[in-house]
Amino acid sequence: MEHREALAMVFDEVRQPFAQQRVGLPELQPGEVTVRIDYTTICTSDLHTFYGRRGAHTPSILGHEIIGTIVAIGPGGVSDYQGATLRIGDAVTWSVYAHDHAGCMAQKGIPQKSPDLFKYGHETLDKDGSLSGGFATHCHLRAGTDIFKLPAGLNRKEAAPLNCTHATIAGALRLAGDLNRKNVLIIGAGMLGLSACAMSKEAGAERVLVLDINPDRAERALRFGADMPLDAALDAAALKEKIAEIGGIDVVIETSGVPAAMEKGMELLNIGGINVWVGAVYAQRDLAINAEKVVRNILTIKGLHNYIPADLAEAIRFLAAHHRKYPFEGLVGTDFPLSELDGAFAVANESGHYRVGIFPEHQ
Amino acid sequence: MEHREALAMVFDEVRQPFAQQRVGLPELQPGEVTVRIDYTTICTSDLHTFYGRRGAHTPSILGHEIIGTIVAIGPGGVSDYQGATLRIGDAVTWSVYAHDHAGCMAQKGIPQKSPDLFKYGHETLDKDGSLSGGFATHCHLRAGTDIFKLPAGLNRKEAAPLNCTHATIAGALRLAGDLNRKNVLIIGAGMLGLSACAMSKEAGAERVLVLDINPDRAERALRFGADMPLDAALDAAALKEKIAEIGGIDVVIETSGVPAAMEKGMELLNIGGINVWVGAVYAQRDLAINAEKVVRNILTIKGLHNYIPADLAEAIRFLAAHHRKYPFEGLVGTDFPLSELDGAFAVANESGHYRVGIFPEHQ
Repeated sequence: MEHREALAMVFDEVRQPFAQQRVGLPELQPGEVTVRIDYTTICTSDLHTFYGRRGAHTPSILGHEIIGTIVAIGPGGVSDYQGATLRIGDAVTWSVYAHDHAGCMAQKGIPQKSPDLFKYGHETLDKDGSLSGGFATHCHLRAGTDIFKLPAGLNRKEAAPLNCTHATIAGALRLAGDLNRKNVLIIGAGMLGLSACAMSKEAGAERVLVLDINPDRAERALRFGADMPLDAALDAAALKEKIAEIGGIDVVIETSGVPAAMEKGMELLNIGGINVWVGAVYAQRDLAINAEKVVRNILTIKGLHNYIPADLAEAIRFLAAHHRKYPFEGLVGTDFPLSELDGAFAVANESGHYRVGIFPEHQ
Repeated sequence: MEHREALAMVFDEVRQPFAQQRVGLPELQPGEVTVRIDYTTICTSDLHTFYGRRGAHTPSILGHEIIGTIVAIGPGGVSDYQGATLRIGDAVTWSVYAHDHAGCMAQKGIPQKSPDLFKYGHETLDKDGSLSGGFATHCHLRAGTDIFKLPAGLNRKEAAPLNCTHATIAGALRLAGDLNRKNVLIIGAGMLGLSACAMSKEAGAERVLVLDINPDRAERALRFGADMPLDAALDAAALKEKIAEIGGIDVVIETSGVPAAMEKGMELLNIGGINVWVGAVYAQRDLAINAEKVVRNILTIKGLHNYIPADLAEAIRFLAAHHRKYPFEGLVGTDFPLSELDGAFAVANESGHYRVGIFPEHQ
């Protein structure tokens, strides 16, 4: 017999302890699913919110890098992204947002910008939309959520970041186009950057270079498919000298969002190069971009925020195929039970771990 | 009997009279063609060169917006872009550059950046490469030039700008992607901008808006497919107000190269919008670009310099299909015989004509 109640850790105020709250499990409507949460990783954006580095709705349940097991399905049944029928007991991940699949933004190919978006881990807690985040025992998946069965063989530390980190990078690679025989520079060797190194390598990149201000992080990227670490403290001229012998850079995947690093990325691109920006999701100074160089060198810049459901499908395919090759599991430096969420946030903020995991203690 | 000699007007020094020079017709090698020039239009970039606003090789024969008639074909015959055999008497246009079709840049899809590029109207005059520009009686088409037969029904004033203005805009629209039901803003209502208005309209744009600092030029664009002129003197907020009721801008084609106008173009773009820059081909201040906005709004910027041969094919198709609808012929305000090239440049520089034409007086 399933529980009738869930437990949620509610975020109400910056740097204040999470409040334990009992929440009734939802009466499911058509297209909806209830998931018992198996594991959630604390994303860097959760830390930004908790420590007040960006605005957020309150009160809310944070956490969006979630995996879980289906415990209830709405009337009429629910299909997964591929159209297969979902069943109780299926281990799943899902898109970080629910959207209207017939809406104008979905038609334009940017469903993540739908006006009616419901974003897991970001919604204000209210009577109707309570179980909307990962720091809880259960999550209520709304109609319009793209749900994916998890492939066998992935452990929970690998699988939790799929629907944020890896799916975003799959989107970046979609925008970058064919990487076969190209030199790819990854800017920033955080979780996004390491995912980008591995995915670029598996997409056929000739060489994967990684630029970070922290030499340890750049070095670590070598275990994730990178061939050559670069020191972000060097200026563009010095970096150009280093990359001249390998034929320069054809594609940049920018995950740091640091203006000076983004400007360097532009400087390093070969003629015909493509620059995909995903890191600049916080307030910052304007970049100085020379338009004549963009025109004469036929450069492209593409911004990406979040991802489309097909990117999450690709991320799952990638991780299922290659998780034994890259030590993604080890990036979750430690984990805590849900009841110790306060301590988990403190460790995540101070330890330098790429991720800290949270697991509910289901009775 | 063809002449054994051609006459060229040689550019040697900024603002100095062109020098008449007799040049022997070439001994053709395989893949080469000699063309008797029928008409050349003075492109704005010819004016930039002549008046010293940009660097150039000297001495040289300027002029690259050229059409002509084949008078000699190299041993073994020469095929046009579509693979049809070329014959003496064919009226043709051709790509502004000859390139190695098997080279690395051609393989990458950017043949206009081939290292071995031969650019008509830009090459230093020497014994081997004499007849390389439009301000002459003949032009020597090198192997690797993509040659196109002119469709019947185009007059020379319409046809001459095909291989520069219209082909570049065809390239810009290729980069912009599907325009169907989109609102397209053309920045700059010069020759490139008017071509962009007409091509965007024929490509299915919902609305074509045109931004220029000169109200007469913006108004004129209404005869070339534009629906709504916008005053470039307005700031971004005022422009946004004007375009709000039509649903904003999905695509910008930027032909002015003016930094302030380019920055406004970025401000006006809808979520998911694409900005194609073709105008910024001169030294200028850096643009201020907000990367967070590019990321969150999923914006794209694509630079384009010159074009690929398929763009010229598309430009010819466009003009053959639609030249009766748009008064491109009237944009050539006046024309002069080749011997009066000095006067023609003065008029082109001072009159405000979109183009001034040059026709050799063949005997």
